Amino acid sequence: MGNNHENLNTVFQALADPTRRAVIQHLISGPASITELAKPFEMALPSFMKHIGVLEDAGLIRSKKIGRVRTCEIKPKQLTAAETWINEQTAQWEGRMARMASFVEALGAEGQDD
Amino acid sequence: MGNNHENLNTVFQALADPTRRAVIQHLISGPASITELAKPFEMALPSFMKHIGVLEDAGLIRSKKIGRVRTCEIKPKQLTAAETWINEQTAQWEGRMARMASFVEALGAEGQDD
Repeated sequence: MGNNHENLNTVFQALADPTRRAVIQHLISGPASITELAKPFEMALPSFMKHIGVLEDAGLIRSKKIGRVRTCEIKPKQLTAAETWINEQTAQWEGRMARMASFVEALGAEGQDD
Repeated sequence: MGNNHENLNTVFQALADPTRRAVIQHLISGPASITELAKPFEMALPSFMKHIGVLEDAGLIRSKKIGRVRTCEIKPKQLTAAETWINEQTAQWEGRMARMASFVEALGAEGQDD
């Protein structure tokens, strides 16, 4: 199990939570402060900060404190890695379905020749 | 949080494990028995069956017992739901990056006019 495997584990784990997915969706449209990000959630700040920590540890976001304000932004690389893994599976699946469809069609055409 | 949210939680949770991802990769190329699927892993059968259970609960695979052989196959719908979520995020990110690039380019062009 290489680094790539471990990264995918932490990335998918980070995405398995609706608060963390909502934070990513917010940050996709631009950087935001922790205060802004936390606003839609009825959650104590320490609980919210744990979610931010999980996203940072997974390499999905980074945060920076300037003065008293901590600002977060997206790091797209790990999201792209997760996307690539899923896209590969669905592409292979679609390829298999297309081959099966051609096979069934060819059988049908053979039947008509009889 | 609707059903879609809960589904994405369990799907991403199911994908956060290398054994479960390997099972999906195997099944993408066609149905397989539990014995075949378990072969590459140095794992006791009950532990392996727990992974199969997580994948079934997430709606990523289904299994059927015929005689003494339990055979698994992919159910693509939930994998596609996870793919759609990630693709939407990366598409929005790429859109934002493209808009920023055009903006910077426009600034550069204005600078040349001076």
